[in-house]
Amino acid sequence: MLDLHAATSPEVKSAIEKGAVAVLAVGAQEQHGAHLPLSTDTVMSQGVARRIAGAIDGLLLPPIAYGDAWNNEGFAGTLSLSPDTMRAIFLDLGRGLARSGFKALIIVNGHFGNREPIALAARMLKAEIGFPVMHLDYPGMERIAGEICDSEPAAPTFYHADEVETSMMLALAPDLVRMEKAAPEYPVFPAGFGTEPIGLDSFNRSGVFGDPRPATAEKGEILIAGIAEESVKMIRLFLAKLG
Amino acid sequence: MLDLHAATSPEVKSAIEKGAVAVLAVGAQEQHGAHLPLSTDTVMSQGVARRIAGAIDGLLLPPIAYGDAWNNEGFAGTLSLSPDTMRAIFLDLGRGLARSGFKALIIVNGHFGNREPIALAARMLKAEIGFPVMHLDYPGMERIAGEICDSEPAAPTFYHADEVETSMMLALAPDLVRMEKAAPEYPVFPAGFGTEPIGLDSFNRSGVFGDPRPATAEKGEILIAGIAEESVKMIRLFLAKLG
Amino acid sequence: MLDLHAATSPEVKSAIEKGAVAVLAVGAQEQHGAHLPLSTDTVMSQGVARRIAGAIDGLLLPPIAYGDAWNNEGFAGTLSLSPDTMRAIFLDLGRGLARSGFKALIIVNGHFGNREPIALAARMLKAEIGFPVMHLDYPGMERIAGEICDSEPAAPTFYHADEVETSMMLALAPDLVRMEKAAPEYPVFPAGFGTEPIGLDSFNRSGVFGDPRPATAEKGEILIAGIAEESVKMIRLFLAKLG
Amino acid sequence: MLDLHAATSPEVKSAIEKGAVAVLAVGAQEQHGAHLPLSTDTVMSQGVARRIAGAIDGLLLPPIAYGDAWNNEGFAGTLSLSPDTMRAIFLDLGRGLARSGFKALIIVNGHFGNREPIALAARMLKAEIGFPVMHLDYPGMERIAGEICDSEPAAPTFYHADEVETSMMLALAPDLVRMEKAAPEYPVFPAGFGTEPIGLDSFNRSGVFGDPRPATAEKGEILIAGIAEESVKMIRLFLAKLG
Amino acid sequence: MLDLHAATSPEVKSAIEKGAVAVLAVGAQEQHGAHLPLSTDTVMSQGVARRIAGAIDGLLLPPIAYGDAWNNEGFAGTLSLSPDTMRAIFLDLGRGLARSGFKALIIVNGHFGNREPIALAARMLKAEIGFPVMHLDYPGMERIAGEICDSEPAAPTFYHADEVETSMMLALAPDLVRMEKAAPEYPVFPAGFGTEPIGLDSFNRSGVFGDPRPATAEKGEILIAGIAEESVKMIRLFLAKLG
Amino acid sequence: MLDLHAATSPEVKSAIEKGAVAVLAVGAQEQHGAHLPLSTDTVMSQGVARRIAGAIDGLLLPPIAYGDAWNNEGFAGTLSLSPDTMRAIFLDLGRGLARSGFKALIIVNGHFGNREPIALAARMLKAEIGFPVMHLDYPGMERIAGEICDSEPAAPTFYHADEVETSMMLALAPDLVRMEKAAPEYPVFPAGFGTEPIGLDSFNRSGVFGDPRPATAEKGEILIAGIAEESVKMIRLFLAKLG
Repeated sequence: MLDLHAATSPEVKSAIEKGAVAVLAVGAQEQHGAHLPLSTDTVMSQGVARRIAGAIDGLLLPPIAYGDAWNNEGFAGTLSLSPDTMRAIFLDLGRGLARSGFKALIIVNGHFGNREPIALAARMLKAEIGFPVMHLDYPGMERIAGEICDSEPAAPTFYHADEVETSMMLALAPDLVRMEKAAPEYPVFPAGFGTEPIGLDSFNRSGVFGDPRPATAEKGEILIAGIAEESVKMIRLFLAKLG
Repeated sequence: MLDLHAATSPEVKSAIEKGAVAVLAVGAQEQHGAHLPLSTDTVMSQGVARRIAGAIDGLLLPPIAYGDAWNNEGFAGTLSLSPDTMRAIFLDLGRGLARSGFKALIIVNGHFGNREPIALAARMLKAEIGFPVMHLDYPGMERIAGEICDSEPAAPTFYHADEVETSMMLALAPDLVRMEKAAPEYPVFPAGFGTEPIGLDSFNRSGVFGDPRPATAEKGEILIAGIAEESVKMIRLFLAKLG
Repeated sequence: MLDLHAATSPEVKSAIEKGAVAVLAVGAQEQHGAHLPLSTDTVMSQGVARRIAGAIDGLLLPPIAYGDAWNNEGFAGTLSLSPDTMRAIFLDLGRGLARSGFKALIIVNGHFGNREPIALAARMLKAEIGFPVMHLDYPGMERIAGEICDSEPAAPTFYHADEVETSMMLALAPDLVRMEKAAPEYPVFPAGFGTEPIGLDSFNRSGVFGDPRPATAEKGEILIAGIAEESVKMIRLFLAKLG
Repeated sequence: MLDLHAATSPEVKSAIEKGAVAVLAVGAQEQHGAHLPLSTDTVMSQGVARRIAGAIDGLLLPPIAYGDAWNNEGFAGTLSLSPDTMRAIFLDLGRGLARSGFKALIIVNGHFGNREPIALAARMLKAEIGFPVMHLDYPGMERIAGEICDSEPAAPTFYHADEVETSMMLALAPDLVRMEKAAPEYPVFPAGFGTEPIGLDSFNRSGVFGDPRPATAEKGEILIAGIAEESVKMIRLFLAKLG
Repeated sequence: MLDLHAATSPEVKSAIEKGAVAVLAVGAQEQHGAHLPLSTDTVMSQGVARRIAGAIDGLLLPPIAYGDAWNNEGFAGTLSLSPDTMRAIFLDLGRGLARSGFKALIIVNGHFGNREPIALAARMLKAEIGFPVMHLDYPGMERIAGEICDSEPAAPTFYHADEVETSMMLALAPDLVRMEKAAPEYPVFPAGFGTEPIGLDSFNRSGVFGDPRPATAEKGEILIAGIAEESVKMIRLFLAKLG
Repeated sequence: MLDLHAATSPEVKSAIEKGAVAVLAVGAQEQHGAHLPLSTDTVMSQGVARRIAGAIDGLLLPPIAYGDAWNNEGFAGTLSLSPDTMRAIFLDLGRGLARSGFKALIIVNGHFGNREPIALAARMLKAEIGFPVMHLDYPGMERIAGEICDSEPAAPTFYHADEVETSMMLALAPDLVRMEKAAPEYPVFPAGFGTEPIGLDSFNRSGVFGDPRPATAEKGEILIAGIAEESVKMIRLFLAKLG
């Protein structure tokens, strides 16, 4: 496994010749309440991506630290890239990886709003230059969270600054977590949620969805390990198809 | 000073109300020979940006870790964003900062190829929404390098994997530097350099321009401190004009 | 209720003055097996939209008969518009409706692949010109299908050429349905489905997902009426907020 | 002849294998006075396209029901797509048809404002992927109208809600025509017409250009049959060249 | 009248303060047979534009020397800008003129292929910033040519390297005309001309349409004077409306 | 050498067959004080380009008379094209030249603001279609100016309406120069110049940078001849590489 933040060009050259696969985490600069940092989605996705890269001997790219977090822009500190800009980033990187001889790109996405531009870029890279891109959204997270969490999510599969994310952050970057500020909020979703553009700050006061208080580093480690394991299983199938 | 990687939304809210200025480092994922990591321009620009943010009590954004490094794409590990994608990133962030109430954006650029998209975005943000953007390219670097360096640059103001950059990296991230692999190269620039698209790998073997061997962390610290000081001076004038 | 296919300009003028709301169905030109026509998603969404427009005295626009059906392009007769083209259509129409004095636009979407460009256009129309757009994806369908269907869907909420869609088509356009060709298929979804661009024809032979044989016009009418009722409830809340 | 609104995927597959040609009508959502519906251009072009598809055993695509009708936007109910959006639609469909194995695309245009984006898309599809597109603007209409009409057009070749269009609508969709509201208007074209962007509502009160009152279904049928015949003649020459 | 090729900034400043109108000729770099230069459309439109600017005391901008001449690209020396590039040029110039305080822009177009991008830019400049643009295509040319020419055009209103254009060139730039090479050609237009993208070189051997031999400078002068006079009449009406 | 303003299509055809190289001057419509015309950069670049085309038997294209002169837009008469429009022009022309069989394109740039779009287009044309573009910015100008000028430039390599440009204009188009209005100005550059978008008119009163008074046609001729000679040397090396 090679971390491209630390690696040198000759090291990458040698890795590519051995059939290297690139791993890219995509996060966000988004509010996560008073107890988690704005970089939460980046730290988490990079943490999972690093685990994955380790398991498949991949090349870990520097993470994309900004995402499309438009519905949290009512909270200070949230900064978004537009879906078009996000897509352009993935297209540029995919073309560069293909030209460099990388075998494939695995995208580890840590933010819901990034899904569509990632999927669209994957589709276009396949159609235009046949470059294989797999994009993962924390496979297994729902199952594991259901097994180990003591609190309920604010909505099904909606994990934001709650026990799940706080646990993962405690495992990955405990110094960035202010547990003394962790407080629950179970906002009532407005009737039209998902059918019109609604800022989350219009019905969520604290930026938290759910209850972060039962979070522990141990739960976080179980989540990270489980998600990485599930991811690696899928990646091996994906790579096997490429021959 | 607030590092938005670690800060929370309520902290940013309070900083904006006090008239916060955002500081954004822009680097690159670019080959830097066998002794410096691919992230060199990002590490350096973020190091300088952090120093500046500290001096002006600014809000340090997560750095942009990719740049337009097209002429180094012949070396493995270099990955570029196109100028249009770069510009789009700065426009999106600038619009978001303006909407959030930030007073201004200071861009600390660490890679030559990023200059134009940054300047263009600054021009457009001023024309479209009147948002003030200052972009700095290591002011004072040439003067200080001339004063303290023991080796000559490969070309005037052309610092790449040489004594200047290696020194700054030794000061900022010594564990990412392999001094035992540092070796000089003074490539002969082809006649048409700058008048046609020429990949640097067509006349540069090692990825080094100049001689990194005399680099020391002390020189790096002098460079960083001097550039930050010069930058802060300029930023104060810039902010004073904004009233 | 005014059908803009049949209405004249003076009639629309008068409706706008009374506070008209536009209703737009968005379908697709997509394979639906051997027993349903390529226009299935358009016929269905227009059928539901007509019911809704009737209930809220809305102005029914001509439907968009093409959608983004990229993953069915391996089947003959499927024709897609790109997500960017789809978005452009909604932006153009939204701007035109706003300029004309329409109060709001209700989009009745009948095809999964259209969701993102519709949502994105809605977001942009709100941000740019404050024009309200609600987009509905057959609310209540899953619940009603669960109550009245005799067959299982091929995957949760995945209704394609199955009992649900065939029933709705039997209710709306029985002459376009060839029940004698209706045959079940429960394809096995490949492991990586949803994590990479996969054409449905790579694992689906007939174009059918599920079992269309138990379909009846009565079930279709229940579905249409139920979805329309659920939609109208949501629309009334949406419009109430607009004042 | 196959109507893709009603056809199924297997039927299209078989038609493509026999060398099918696609026929696409392009209309508009545009005011046509108090006696003709907003869909007039769509109904007419689809009527002619259906006749043509019948004659050449073509595949009739669902019509494009919106066009670029900017200069009628002053009249309620007119809704335009921009020329760029129109062009994108034709490019997407053309690429899809080419990929699907269609031999060629015949576009039957029913609205003046669509001419340029259609012609431009045809040019680009030929240059980029060599896909043959023919675009017809009611060939023979002027000659036939001159022969059978009892009223004069408001300007040469300018047929809008007049005897020509009303006759064709009476032949194609008599239930959409309100003959009792048909009234003539011969507006005076402003001096600068055609040299600057001028809304038609600035000099045309009723939306009618000419005199619709002498319209009959019989004249309409003669027009449709004549235009289709002339079109088919041209299409046969066009297809013959393709070999 | 001020020629902006020769004028200085202070002179323009003073003219703008007096309510200056800009006049812009748009030509092409297009084959015109063996006896006329590639710049024919530019020379002609600039000649007419200069006459017009003189009559209305306008500010004559440097001409656009390239146009969209795609259907002549089969002949060497023809160089086109795409319609999108053409439109962008007019939008940029229009915005600049508006910002500078110009009252209006008069475009004197000398090439058929430029019509649509010019008209589209005029429409957009009016809609977006309310800047008035008039675009003229040699008004009166057909009438005058009919009166004074001894040869027939190859097709109605189709003047290319024929008696009309050659006469105007003899009047404007006699040194650029090789009358000894002037030879007639009356090509047979293919059946599908105008209904599909057809290069003119596929049925035109010499690049000439019609008979240039009867051309004289006197006829050219009559054409230029007549077109300019007709244009000025229309411009005065246009400007009068602006108040 | 062939001037495409005057040349005919058959002449270009023959030149292309002999391996012709295109030469394109790119200027600007930009204020140059009270003594030089707005077309100064166009006249100068075309003058140098003509000399170059003469020396290498090239094909001289009509010059691009508009450039990106945004920072002089505060002065009347300056009219800019955006960097994207400029790039589009070069891409269109480059593609057309490549398709026509030209061997290469030499761009003679006369305006600083055009550098980036030219370089970017050159890079894209190489990457996309392998078409070779060389772009020259008056090589040798600084050296020669240092040798023969009697006045100092307002800033290093900053020549604008000064002795250098005025001399070249006296040599190329003396009738466009008003020496009686030539007056010096040595503006003080603001501290932040180059780090934020600053209009030149904010610190430059007359539009002149330096002292135009010692200008002579003789100096201009030396400059033009020297720049052309240096350019030709570089072009020969460039062409030699193409084989």
